[in-house]
Amino acid sequence: MTETVQSTTDVVALAEALIACPSVTPATGMVFDCLEAQLAPLGFAVHRAISGEAPDGPVENLFAIRKGPEGSRHFAFAGHLDVVPPGEGWSSGAFAPEVRGELLYGRGAVDMKGSIAAMVAAAAQIPAEAGTISFVITGDEEGPARYGTLALIEHMRAVGEIPDLCLVGEPTSVHRLGDMMKIGRRGSVNIWLEVAGVQGHVAYPHLADNPIPRLVAMLAELDALLLDEGTDWFQASNLEVTDLTVGNPATNVIPAKASARISIRFNDLHTGESLAARVTEIAERHGGSARPVISGEAFLTEPGDFSALLAGAIRAETGVEPELSTSGGTSDARFLKDLSPVIEFGLCNATMHKRDEAVAIADLEALVKIYRRVTEAALSV
Amino acid sequence: MTETVQSTTDVVALAEALIACPSVTPATGMVFDCLEAQLAPLGFAVHRAISGEAPDGPVENLFAIRKGPEGSRHFAFAGHLDVVPPGEGWSSGAFAPEVRGELLYGRGAVDMKGSIAAMVAAAAQIPAEAGTISFVITGDEEGPARYGTLALIEHMRAVGEIPDLCLVGEPTSVHRLGDMMKIGRRGSVNIWLEVAGVQGHVAYPHLADNPIPRLVAMLAELDALLLDEGTDWFQASNLEVTDLTVGNPATNVIPAKASARISIRFNDLHTGESLAARVTEIAERHGGSARPVISGEAFLTEPGDFSALLAGAIRAETGVEPELSTSGGTSDARFLKDLSPVIEFGLCNATMHKRDEAVAIADLEALVKIYRRVTEAALSV
Ligand SMILES: [Zn+2]
Ligand SMILES: [Zn+2]
Repeated sequence: MTETVQSTTDVVALAEALIACPSVTPATGMVFDCLEAQLAPLGFAVHRAISGEAPDGPVENLFAIRKGPEGSRHFAFAGHLDVVPPGEGWSSGAFAPEVRGELLYGRGAVDMKGSIAAMVAAAAQIPAEAGTISFVITGDEEGPARYGTLALIEHMRAVGEIPDLCLVGEPTSVHRLGDMMKIGRRGSVNIWLEVAGVQGHVAYPHLADNPIPRLVAMLAELDALLLDEGTDWFQASNLEVTDLTVGNPATNVIPAKASARISIRFNDLHTGESLAARVTEIAERHGGSARPVISGEAFLTEPGDFSALLAGAIRAETGVEPELSTSGGTSDARFLKDLSPVIEFGLCNATMHKRDEAVAIADLEALVKIYRRVTEAALSV
Repeated sequence: MTETVQSTTDVVALAEALIACPSVTPATGMVFDCLEAQLAPLGFAVHRAISGEAPDGPVENLFAIRKGPEGSRHFAFAGHLDVVPPGEGWSSGAFAPEVRGELLYGRGAVDMKGSIAAMVAAAAQIPAEAGTISFVITGDEEGPARYGTLALIEHMRAVGEIPDLCLVGEPTSVHRLGDMMKIGRRGSVNIWLEVAGVQGHVAYPHLADNPIPRLVAMLAELDALLLDEGTDWFQASNLEVTDLTVGNPATNVIPAKASARISIRFNDLHTGESLAARVTEIAERHGGSARPVISGEAFLTEPGDFSALLAGAIRAETGVEPELSTSGGTSDARFLKDLSPVIEFGLCNATMHKRDEAVAIADLEALVKIYRRVTEAALSV
């Protein structure tokens, strides 16, 4: 690589340019123009498309690919340009990137415009002959995500560009860059529970049928469930009751209906379907009903070549041995796993979704090196 | 009594006049003018007053008294001129009284303008020398009742007119006139329950503290309580959970707070205070808090002279042996019990609070006779 190419793809300048485009979820327009302007000069063919309709769309997505020689391996980098709302109390503008001391401040600095910038800088340092590199970038990961990465996957299938490996640039590091990668995620299912009764006056309970005691008994049984005790790679699955609703303003009325909502985060011992069936059986036994909505299945990229290759790159650049984790919430890796093995690795997440979100300049620079190393290794396997 | 007096106080005409004055709770003005116009010619001194302020006031009340000779006994008749909203679907106007066949239709026909009319007609037939008769009539029994009968009691205490016995004209008959009187009422307490927790993300439950399982355990324990098995005169006390509230729209958030509301209808083995203390102990043991609001204490006018005298009057006029009951909701008798023994007896309640509320003309006429008989007997004890 020449010094010239290096300087036009300075990772801090790239990150600042992306942060300077306000892109509260769902992101559209300017921030995509910015990324396109960074990728096109590097030889990437950029495809942008708008998908979906209200209420969960429209959503803008970008797929950029730089093809290597015929028969090259294909390494995909996935991420999102949308950010969560900045909230109040920032020391400087959330969308006015500012370097103060060792840190670059701005919404998206770590989640995840910083890591997109690092991958752009890494790609600039890798010759096209090394193999096929793609960027799979959505404008809706922080929102409903219904027309985001799913639409990108559909496009990639349609054009036949299925990667061999996929790295998601989410901020997985915890205390220092490189201390954690995510090789899997728990699945997530939300289930709406309802018990119907017969409305009546509290003075004449024999003429009514109060649904609340049945809901309470149902929830007590659900809360006592031990779904599992965890696996080698996953923590135990967990069920939380997240809402209760009756909405009865009249103190002397027995209500006609009582509802609740539960959220289950589950490991790969379960599927959304198996849990939905189990909860439905319990709900019906208590005279209620259950309506499940599966957000994502659990997945695991078994520790092996890909994780070893990424761990090697991290170790080489930082000296840190990354933990292989499956903790935390869901990410778009839950969709990408259908295309290829997928692992997530990125910046430190301490300030993500918070005010004064910031990334260490040193971490940004180290991440460029890690991403370059893992990409080159992935392409040459 | 002369035939002339009888005709100007025809019970159907009196009831029609009261029904024709719209008086959805809280009642004011015209319907009180109407009753005053009925009572004044019979020799009653009529006191009207407006009590209270928003939100539970102002409320209009009427106290009318016709004093007997010095040292007379005092018999009070209590009731309300307000009515519940008519709702839809009436065959004729809710406030356009209409006789069709054997029935007089109109909102308040049985609850309880009909019985007020019957007592006016009865009083017209009783000479003033027989003793002191009073009417204790509120415009707010169907509403919050905070400035209704309570204000009347305050007035009666202030002017030193404490009755020896009090009959409340609520519609207590069920299948036929005379089959039931109420010698007591259960008490009522509503208790707001709350459990505080720590909000968090469902993916990181160890960083949060979900208040819902504690509320569910608390409610399960409360629902399983056996408060008592009833007494000779009361059915068992009963607890109903009437509301649940979390109000958490976010499926991935563990909420910070969960609330519920219970309603207890209790017999004279308990007080509002004793139940509030018991529920508070349970709530606090589950990490929650309880805020009780006592609507009324249980009371019982032990079967004895008053009930025997009323039963005798009913039997004499209808041939029916009344059941002495304590069932049903609360009534203003819960306040009046502090003044004197109180019993409730009135028309058939099948159509109360419903569309096409109606009273049998024959029942109205029989009720005049029963009220006359019981009043005369009460004054001559
Ligand atoms: Zn993210
Ligand atoms: Zn009533």
